[in-house]
Amino acid sequence: MQIIHSIRALQDWRRHHQLKRGTIGFVPTLGALHEGHRSLLQQARKTNDSVVASIFVNPLQFGPSEDFHSYPRTLAADQAMCDQEGVDLLFIPKRNELYPTDFQTSVSVSLLTARWEGESRPQHFPGVTTIVTKLLILLQPDHAFFGQKDYQQFLVIKQLVKDLNLAMRIVGCPTIREADGLAFSSRNRYLTTGQRSEAARLYQTLRHGGQLIRQGQRQGRVIKKAIFTRLTRTTSGTIDYIGICNSRTLEPLATITGQVTLLGAIRFGKVRLIDNLRVRVPRGSDP
Amino acid sequence: MQIIHSIRALQDWRRHHQLKRGTIGFVPTLGALHEGHRSLLQQARKTNDSVVASIFVNPLQFGPSEDFHSYPRTLAADQAMCDQEGVDLLFIPKRNELYPTDFQTSVSVSLLTARWEGESRPQHFPGVTTIVTKLLILLQPDHAFFGQKDYQQFLVIKQLVKDLNLAMRIVGCPTIREADGLAFSSRNRYLTTGQRSEAARLYQTLRHGGQLIRQGQRQGRVIKKAIFTRLTRTTSGTIDYIGICNSRTLEPLATITGQVTLLGAIRFGKVRLIDNLRVRVPRGSDP
Repeated sequence: MQIIHSIRALQDWRRHHQLKRGTIGFVPTLGALHEGHRSLLQQARKTNDSVVASIFVNPLQFGPSEDFHSYPRTLAADQAMCDQEGVDLLFIPKRNELYPTDFQTSVSVSLLTARWEGESRPQHFPGVTTIVTKLLILLQPDHAFFGQKDYQQFLVIKQLVKDLNLAMRIVGCPTIREADGLAFSSRNRYLTTGQRSEAARLYQTLRHGGQLIRQGQRQGRVIKKAIFTRLTRTTSGTIDYIGICNSRTLEPLATITGQVTLLGAIRFGKVRLIDNLRVRVPRGSDP
Repeated sequence: MQIIHSIRALQDWRRHHQLKRGTIGFVPTLGALHEGHRSLLQQARKTNDSVVASIFVNPLQFGPSEDFHSYPRTLAADQAMCDQEGVDLLFIPKRNELYPTDFQTSVSVSLLTARWEGESRPQHFPGVTTIVTKLLILLQPDHAFFGQKDYQQFLVIKQLVKDLNLAMRIVGCPTIREADGLAFSSRNRYLTTGQRSEAARLYQTLRHGGQLIRQGQRQGRVIKKAIFTRLTRTTSGTIDYIGICNSRTLEPLATITGQVTLLGAIRFGKVRLIDNLRVRVPRGSDP
């Protein structure tokens, strides 16, 4: 596996690769790789001639009071996983090369970022869309892989790629979970034992909401309240938001219909976790 | 000359071209081509294997009270000029293909757009940087050509390309002028005869400012006032701004030093004209 640190070297690699005409699969990450990332790398490996991964803890997507400095850095283990999963090229850019002192360009997506993570973390999506645009322009992959645990991010990046005419496909991969349902996340390691045992309730409770829908409940308000109540009763966490929304636009649904996504964000101390569940309302039961 | 209207067809052309490995020179325009555009096309032709021009009156870069609807459309003449200047491909995209109804991504540049055109026309640069990013991603040219009459725009686009890691060179071409010094502009045709005879004063007066600098004047305030006074005395136009600024950052200079750019914007009725002049302060005379 080749490791590149400079943008110039990456562009040379990219240019050289173009002549080979093989496909490139790209997995951009913040490092601290876990089983979720592994599944992205495997999916990229299965469907492409070359696999590129990047590791960059992007300061732009963290708010001033957020965990940029404490975000886990586990480079040796990350490198080992990339090697193990057959990554051809690992790109580990330097911050001052991606963001020189006179850097002043921003890429933003409006409607899809207006709520949920975008509302709770106002700097987050402009930071994500700016770095992802840069990386996609640098790599020009055929496919780029994103985890659906960050479902809103996945939709935002699909929109960005469509709007900017980037000729590539954004592939959303299923969330990988621990036995009790907790989604793998780089931030899980910061949960205390007590918090860890409660953390899976987020997903379990979203599933309870899904069950209510399958049982015929069609009022978003009722489902949201049921999730809130159950989460509050069974965990010590602080709920940031619960959303029952259209899976394509992420707009909240008063009445459940079509493809529905349940979103949740909860804080345990300084650790903020998100998760989601997609529910297909059976056709016959639509109002 | 091939003419393409659809993005898909353009991407096919681009992909096919990649294998040929010749250089592409790109001249993006709003149409209503004049001698300034001709010089861009000629420069592109001289330095590249293939020349691509685009014509698109981009609604995003016009404010609600601006001249989007009255902006001149002269497609037949534009096409003739492109043919005459050896353009290989003319891209005339459709508005609803560049901006589908769910379009929601914006590219913006902050510091360089804070003043001058950016201040007078708040929607202008986000519109320009968004469409130019889309076109540069679609074409992936080796060189893209912009006129220096729009000097701030030229700097903004250079910054954008650097910040987004677009692997291409932005070439700024000298302003082409009528005999009396008026810069060619698509909007000149809307000047009345009386306004037309006054319009050249903008450039003439900027040159007067340049002369003051060469004569040793080092106070930005004094030069600006001299330009204002002369322009007010000799034209019926309304001055939008006069700027004496650093040629790289466009920040106003209290004391003249190094590479200086004089910027001006003036309105004659509904027609708004801009121009600029770069002045190199002789080294020996620096403070």
